[in-house]
Amino acid sequence: MTHNIEQLDRLDPLAACREQFALPENTIYLDGNSLGALPKASAARVHEVVSHQWGNDLISAWNKHSWIELPLTVGDKIAPLLGAAAGQVVVTDSISINLYKLLVTALNMQPGRNTVVSEQGNFPTDLYMVQGIEALLGSQRCELNSVPTEELDDALDENVAVLMLTHVNFRSGRIHDMQRLTRLAQDKGILVIWDLAHSTGAVPLNLDACNVDFAVGCGYKYLNGGPGAPAFIYAAARHHAQIKQPLSGWMGHANPFAFSDNYEPAAGVRQFLTGTPSIIAMAALDAALDVFADVDMQAVRNKSIELTELFLSLKKDHACLFDLTLQSPADPAVRGSQLSFSHPDAYAICQALIGHGVIPDFRAPDIVRFGFTPLYLRYSDIAQAIDILATIMDHALYRDSKYNQRATVT
Amino acid sequence: MTHNIEQLDRLDPLAACREQFALPENTIYLDGNSLGALPKASAARVHEVVSHQWGNDLISAWNKHSWIELPLTVGDKIAPLLGAAAGQVVVTDSISINLYKLLVTALNMQPGRNTVVSEQGNFPTDLYMVQGIEALLGSQRCELNSVPTEELDDALDENVAVLMLTHVNFRSGRIHDMQRLTRLAQDKGILVIWDLAHSTGAVPLNLDACNVDFAVGCGYKYLNGGPGAPAFIYAAARHHAQIKQPLSGWMGHANPFAFSDNYEPAAGVRQFLTGTPSIIAMAALDAALDVFADVDMQAVRNKSIELTELFLSLKKDHACLFDLTLQSPADPAVRGSQLSFSHPDAYAICQALIGHGVIPDFRAPDIVRFGFTPLYLRYSDIAQAIDILATIMDHALYRDSKYNQRATVT
Repeated sequence: MTHNIEQLDRLDPLAACREQFALPENTIYLDGNSLGALPKASAARVHEVVSHQWGNDLISAWNKHSWIELPLTVGDKIAPLLGAAAGQVVVTDSISINLYKLLVTALNMQPGRNTVVSEQGNFPTDLYMVQGIEALLGSQRCELNSVPTEELDDALDENVAVLMLTHVNFRSGRIHDMQRLTRLAQDKGILVIWDLAHSTGAVPLNLDACNVDFAVGCGYKYLNGGPGAPAFIYAAARHHAQIKQPLSGWMGHANPFAFSDNYEPAAGVRQFLTGTPSIIAMAALDAALDVFADVDMQAVRNKSIELTELFLSLKKDHACLFDLTLQSPADPAVRGSQLSFSHPDAYAICQALIGHGVIPDFRAPDIVRFGFTPLYLRYSDIAQAIDILATIMDHALYRDSKYNQRATVT
Repeated sequence: MTHNIEQLDRLDPLAACREQFALPENTIYLDGNSLGALPKASAARVHEVVSHQWGNDLISAWNKHSWIELPLTVGDKIAPLLGAAAGQVVVTDSISINLYKLLVTALNMQPGRNTVVSEQGNFPTDLYMVQGIEALLGSQRCELNSVPTEELDDALDENVAVLMLTHVNFRSGRIHDMQRLTRLAQDKGILVIWDLAHSTGAVPLNLDACNVDFAVGCGYKYLNGGPGAPAFIYAAARHHAQIKQPLSGWMGHANPFAFSDNYEPAAGVRQFLTGTPSIIAMAALDAALDVFADVDMQAVRNKSIELTELFLSLKKDHACLFDLTLQSPADPAVRGSQLSFSHPDAYAICQALIGHGVIPDFRAPDIVRFGFTPLYLRYSDIAQAIDILATIMDHALYRDSKYNQRATVT
């Protein structure tokens, strides 16, 4: 199979987006699903917020620059990427903490039901947060049932309070059918929480149309909000009156500056706020979202599929790559913006790739994971990455001892 | 009483610290207890982290720049300011969320006890977080008893699980006797959580010597870590084996990158981590703490007392200031680094001061609060602030309608 790579780049409707990122030279970055690249606008905004807003305006910046409203205004910028009407998204804390708020909220809405169904191999923190609630409340009120993926449908019965799933699996990239599973669960009276960490900014989403109850998502992967950027919560408007979340801090109070001794929740998604958010971190995310302002998510999805299909197609040209076994779905329709391959030497292969300017990541125990970010990757980057991978595998360069020393890897 | 203001500034051993801050011109900033001023090192560090570490090193920065260790390394930088040995402080999340972790941890350690004693007029979020736990667990397991300050001693009995107090009151600036109250509580088998929001970086602390159990503190007030900077947790080493906190996220796992389905807490204070922290926010705080590296906290305290005493002394020279009634303790030994005055027109007076380049803050319903930050305030600033305040009060400038329009105030 032959490809006119240059032509693909020339005709790419998203080609201009790359200019909005500050990318290191001589690097092909295939890990934007772990930490998105730096948008130039974020660097500029952080400088503005630190040096001028904080430095010059000090405390008055909270009003003057509407810092106090950022969790909601940035939330409303994310909403279109989720297929969500305004007023249903708030930017706050981390996915882990936001799941805690939503899980307890949902359990409170389901008296007489105690089970949280999830799947084995979900991103671990999602399971850990349920385990934390189970340890605190006891299994009468919260019991995690994480089942193999193929048993999910059968696990949904009238004892189940909550179905909590990650839309795109972090390891394989497999996409769940959000609409089908949401409806299946809701038909049994189950509330559904979707983790959109590997979806938001990568695949088109339709939370409102799918009648989703709640969701969380990540600011630092495909949204490019910076390392540890704040996460977000989506809560369908129909549930706002029933929210009762346990992390009832002053920023979620109906009137925080009344300094009353008794908690009274703010209306809507604002009540999911807890403490004072980092404005610098929030501003970096806010600016990063501007990259999406003129971007059609279907165009992102189309290019994402083309990039992954190109990778797979070129891989077939190299016999030395046959030992890298695809662990992602072969059908791009049910695959997120990543490709994962298993190999016994996955860790060393990752290190060798990094040593040669191609950045994937390793996911224990044996996965090399490539993330494909259509906003700043070119088709020619994919071709070059395959060439480098083939060189590494063909000459077994990954066997060099320097690629086999384990360090903490994120 | 006369003062040689110039001489006070000339002889000030902390005078050089002011140079380490980027301060706006023509502004006297008396609100560093709400949002600390910008350290020049923080601006430089944020630029470095965004443009070089994130921008160039991308995902590899987590190891290359030890981002993954920042919660602990920054915690160990804070520890000396707390009178705490290393390994007991971790930087994470907000005070509100950290209180939740500690309250549940402490309640778990106190089977058969359910009461959390605090005081009325404590910073509201502290009370709200207990209320959130009470609503979740029921009053059999958690019941808030917030009493008037003078009834605190009597409220401490064998039913009490936790005493949760703020060391320096946000409204009045009154300092609790940490050593006496900790001992009094512990004599009844009560665990003690101190909120050090208005203490850390302002008054010398001796958590280890006072045998404190747990504490939380703020990164964005006297530590100057930036708006919404991450907060910290102190947990005495003797309790580390018993920690069981409910927000059991992957960053607090013993081996986060094993991606196992079951939560297993990390050793020590690391298990208080939950989600992925904002590295940009953490870096700003990290750099801000370097200002304290060569600073003696007793020198900070001495200057703080001198600044507040100077303010009170100069205030006495102006009959027009007599209506501003001191609500802080008159004895500087039991007063933090602030002075609060009540006045029926407190809001408008604050606005008029801001209009004239002096920044205090307003605390509902009727408090003008002045914060005194010895690292960047001069004695001459205090004298000038009093002159401006006297002009405003003498000519009732605060009655101008433009100073009477309410906005959100932090």
